[in-house]
Amino acid sequence: MPAGEFDIIRRYFTRPKRRGDVRLGVGDDAALLRPPAGQELVVTTDTSIAGRHFPTETPAADAGWRALAVNLSDLAAMGAEPAWFTLALTLPSSDDDWLAAFSKGLFQCADSAGIELVGGDVTRGVLVITITAMGLVPARTAMRRAGALPGDTICVTGTLGDAALGLQLLQAGGDTGSNDARALLQRLYRPQPRLAAGAALRGKAHACIDVSDGFAADLGHILQASGVGAEVDAAALPASEAFARLAGEDATALQCGGDDYELCVCLPPAPVRELSLDCPLTPVGRITAEPGLRWRDAAGNEIPPPGGYDHFQP
Amino acid sequence: MPAGEFDIIRRYFTRPKRRGDVRLGVGDDAALLRPPAGQELVVTTDTSIAGRHFPTETPAADAGWRALAVNLSDLAAMGAEPAWFTLALTLPSSDDDWLAAFSKGLFQCADSAGIELVGGDVTRGVLVITITAMGLVPARTAMRRAGALPGDTICVTGTLGDAALGLQLLQAGGDTGSNDARALLQRLYRPQPRLAAGAALRGKAHACIDVSDGFAADLGHILQASGVGAEVDAAALPASEAFARLAGEDATALQCGGDDYELCVCLPPAPVRELSLDCPLTPVGRITAEPGLRWRDAAGNEIPPPGGYDHFQP
Repeated sequence: MPAGEFDIIRRYFTRPKRRGDVRLGVGDDAALLRPPAGQELVVTTDTSIAGRHFPTETPAADAGWRALAVNLSDLAAMGAEPAWFTLALTLPSSDDDWLAAFSKGLFQCADSAGIELVGGDVTRGVLVITITAMGLVPARTAMRRAGALPGDTICVTGTLGDAALGLQLLQAGGDTGSNDARALLQRLYRPQPRLAAGAALRGKAHACIDVSDGFAADLGHILQASGVGAEVDAAALPASEAFARLAGEDATALQCGGDDYELCVCLPPAPVRELSLDCPLTPVGRITAEPGLRWRDAAGNEIPPPGGYDHFQP
Repeated sequence: MPAGEFDIIRRYFTRPKRRGDVRLGVGDDAALLRPPAGQELVVTTDTSIAGRHFPTETPAADAGWRALAVNLSDLAAMGAEPAWFTLALTLPSSDDDWLAAFSKGLFQCADSAGIELVGGDVTRGVLVITITAMGLVPARTAMRRAGALPGDTICVTGTLGDAALGLQLLQAGGDTGSNDARALLQRLYRPQPRLAAGAALRGKAHACIDVSDGFAADLGHILQASGVGAEVDAAALPASEAFARLAGEDATALQCGGDDYELCVCLPPAPVRELSLDCPLTPVGRITAEPGLRWRDAAGNEIPPPGGYDHFQP
């Protein structure tokens, strides 16, 4: 550990306990937590590296928000309620301004989700942020990638492509000051995990995944785990108004560009209309017994899969 | 994630389930685990960086063993039984030989402790290994740093100083082929977490910590958390035969050099003789109401605290 680890933890990462189920938080050899009876524990780990998982231009507060949000998105995909997380932070130096902003963004995201930091590690090195998030779900109700059935409707929460287009604008070095560009960059810098939607879909969806690698890639994980195929209507992929105004000809490819942190769910046809979520849920295709992922245009004709977009993550 | 993340996970980090309480392990959005009723969850996170937490010369299999063992040592210090862990691995390249050896050492350590890998993340960058280990302990029985009382006997498991002396020999570039030197290097490369001793001390010790930063520093954490002081008999610190033969004049300082992964416990005087552990437990001092840490020689005279040793971890 670097000289100053204890100072950094005390100054930036120690707060009064927020949850009654935390017996011992930051500061002992380990955290001591009380999972309630009848619940299963959901655990996910994600590493974020500047220049690889998020642009180096990302403000420190947004880097803190984002590092936790991408883990919360995995909890949302299983329908879990966030509970606790640990933070392993490798830092090149002890930069007070950076640490103050990073921890502020991190805790803003934590407080918005009701999740508590319970431990971690601070070391010196190139910037690497690893978060392990734990959530709770009633036994045997968690959504998984496996379980999609032929005939299921494939739906997506919110809109797709905003973060990928925001990144493209940023990398092109153009004007990012317009309202539309700022809305897209906000999606890139401050992903909003679909926790409420995930909890509401639990027990209704046959399969669920969060859209991080890109819509086609992540739907592909569901198809592989479920042993099914799919048809997707390219024109049905939901887009924001800002995206619709700024995206060019490769709109569908951008909508498969990733970093959306929306949910992709497979539902039996009937309940789609009955669901009451806090966000839009758009049908975009259907599960088929025939394997593979086929794309169709608005007229129903098969088209080549969208591609050619270089995603930020190599 | 790097191209090949899924391949790396499939080839090196996917094994059949070993524990009945793992509903979903490596390969979904998150792991799904079943904590038993009446148990508390113990969670610890430790990052290991080559050249900082372990020598760059460390064989890959030992790096894998060690990265998990240091986390298990934190579980041991609380008296917890190991259950599940996640691995976040940042790698400069996809080196098959390194990955095969690293995962072999990691799983050797995991199998020796009955802990199961349930998820993680593989990314590209400089080598950083972050493990989050989870354990279980009957409710309200975990040992903590706080709780030491004046009059308690301070005891240490096993021997101190072997890893620090092994590192000194390695850094001096001398002959490390003798049986003694190899025994010391084994302590450095393959720390043995005191899991059985920790479980046996649960309910008997007033306070416990694992010796990672160094005996004096870690005892200091107990004193601070418990609001007490201590007297330590320098000559009583337990040493291995190899250490006794090879350590020079600064033996006590080396015994405070860290990386021992032994347990330091504070026990009411009576039970020390009655404990039946799978390793030696040596009384080295006593807790005092007066704050501060005082050192005494074999004749009982106060001596200056050992120091001047440059620990590997800056």
